[in-house]
Amino acid sequence: MNVIKPLIFENDKLLILDQRKLPFEEVYIEVKSSEHMAKLIKDMALRGAPLIAISACYSILIDVLNNKEREELLKSIEILKHSRPTAINLFNALSEVEKIILNSKNLKEELYNFVIKLDQEEKERCLRISENGLKIFKKESVVLTYCNTGFLATTGIGTALGVIYKAFEKGLIKEVIIPETRPYLQGSRLTLYELEKLKIPYKLITDNSIAFLMSKGYIDLVIVGADRVLSDGTLINKIGTLNIAILSKYFNIPFYTAFPISTYDNNSKIEDVIIEERGKEEVIKINNNLITLENAKVLNYAFDITPANLITGYITDEGVNYGGRKEVI
Amino acid sequence: MNVIKPLIFENDKLLILDQRKLPFEEVYIEVKSSEHMAKLIKDMALRGAPLIAISACYSILIDVLNNKEREELLKSIEILKHSRPTAINLFNALSEVEKIILNSKNLKEELYNFVIKLDQEEKERCLRISENGLKIFKKESVVLTYCNTGFLATTGIGTALGVIYKAFEKGLIKEVIIPETRPYLQGSRLTLYELEKLKIPYKLITDNSIAFLMSKGYIDLVIVGADRVLSDGTLINKIGTLNIAILSKYFNIPFYTAFPISTYDNNSKIEDVIIEERGKEEVIKINNNLITLENAKVLNYAFDITPANLITGYITDEGVNYGGRKEVI
Repeated sequence: MNVIKPLIFENDKLLILDQRKLPFEEVYIEVKSSEHMAKLIKDMALRGAPLIAISACYSILIDVLNNKEREELLKSIEILKHSRPTAINLFNALSEVEKIILNSKNLKEELYNFVIKLDQEEKERCLRISENGLKIFKKESVVLTYCNTGFLATTGIGTALGVIYKAFEKGLIKEVIIPETRPYLQGSRLTLYELEKLKIPYKLITDNSIAFLMSKGYIDLVIVGADRVLSDGTLINKIGTLNIAILSKYFNIPFYTAFPISTYDNNSKIEDVIIEERGKEEVIKINNNLITLENAKVLNYAFDITPANLITGYITDEGVNYGGRKEVI
Repeated sequence: MNVIKPLIFENDKLLILDQRKLPFEEVYIEVKSSEHMAKLIKDMALRGAPLIAISACYSILIDVLNNKEREELLKSIEILKHSRPTAINLFNALSEVEKIILNSKNLKEELYNFVIKLDQEEKERCLRISENGLKIFKKESVVLTYCNTGFLATTGIGTALGVIYKAFEKGLIKEVIIPETRPYLQGSRLTLYELEKLKIPYKLITDNSIAFLMSKGYIDLVIVGADRVLSDGTLINKIGTLNIAILSKYFNIPFYTAFPISTYDNNSKIEDVIIEERGKEEVIKINNNLITLENAKVLNYAFDITPANLITGYITDEGVNYGGRKEVI
């Protein structure tokens, strides 16, 4: 498989693929420090919860290789933790790094080993998700996925897209349907870029075309990722996921979500979940060009909430759990 | 009400507001011939089923005023009929023009009278639709509409938006929710432009946000337009309409469609309806700027098909017919 690398760590240098320039240009940025990384995360040069967690840890390693003082390192960790407030993986991974900084005897070596291991484990988790996902395919299928959940969101082959990649290897994918995923276009910019690279057949559609394609019997299966999954099976994911889940139920098309078990949030209840409302710039501009009036009034929720009774199954690195949807699968 | 004019016919000159340049610039194009008009329709300089029907008839009148031969006129009518295959009004109005061309003794005068009358009747039909629509409101409401069905889609106050305008005058509109309507952005460019002009409160959203807003109880009512309605109540309308109809049923929100009775197509069956598949340029470019790879593979259906059992009611110039949705309204 033609691996796409959103992060390269070689000869003690850290390079990050600038996802803002995709799919047009492949530009790597050498990350010089953790402050630099915090800015890159804030500015969306990279995204995907698992990817930013690992990247942040690598950037602390860069600081250590540059002989930064422990006190400074701890300050940097605080800054990084706040660079993407919704990402629980980022917070947890950096807390581990913090412990190493406070307790280690040989900081350089211990941190090095920790980060390399985290990266390796992430790759293996992705692979296990993809292998576990194979069982949901009954035949060569047209699969709809959403947003971006592949190489560019993890350091492995991805979550929902990883399942699709593994299924493609096994001859189980006829075509992938990519809704463009407004407003940030992760579908048309990032997922499309990955599928072009991997030479997997796909069609790009607007988000509002999904119902019509389903009504024509075009789509066999839906697999999306997850930003957070509550203990009752409620899925919090990219805005538009609820839409697809309702349509899938209406047309009796299986709807799966794929994620590492670290995405389970067993502590929060639905009332605790705050859905991030982002600024209007993303909706009224594309590539910095205005597409409607600058003074437009906009509602821009970044995520939505899909109840368990709309979900056919949950694909994780531990297996597949069948969900709350009542129809025969 | 601050009237917006998508078409001006004065001193035997025909001017069309170039809707591609909205909401940024108000530029009128003088239409020199029916060939010119066919190209403008194909290129989306104007759209909206009632508007293109009347505009096409006016352009034949321009040809007649320029002393074009009858044979040439009949050829032009064929070309115009195919400039937007889904629009039944266009087909029907041009068939009337065809009859006049074949049978009239004083072509110039008869055609002139026909077109002016058609235009006037259209304005009156819009008003009657808007008045008939008032009865669907039970309280001051947040209404979701779709695409553009107002001044810019008709030569009157519009169909679905016309109902909203009349209801706003009566204090029945709290806020209008405008999905942007990809790929052509008729929501964010045209409907938003109209509501800004008329100072009606609104919020712009991405098309994939509709489900989440409905799940939060934000939306009281949906009113969309219609490109064609079959005798069994099947609605053919802008791609994404089916999506909204399914979501409305799921969340038990009334879903209405508003249109002049000329939009009824009593001859066709669902199998006869050809859904226009447009080129990929609209999806991969916005304002001529590429938003994904030029060689992207795209499926771009312009319309979709909503069955009657998803429709609460049909608002026309003759009244409101309640549809096939089973719940109590």
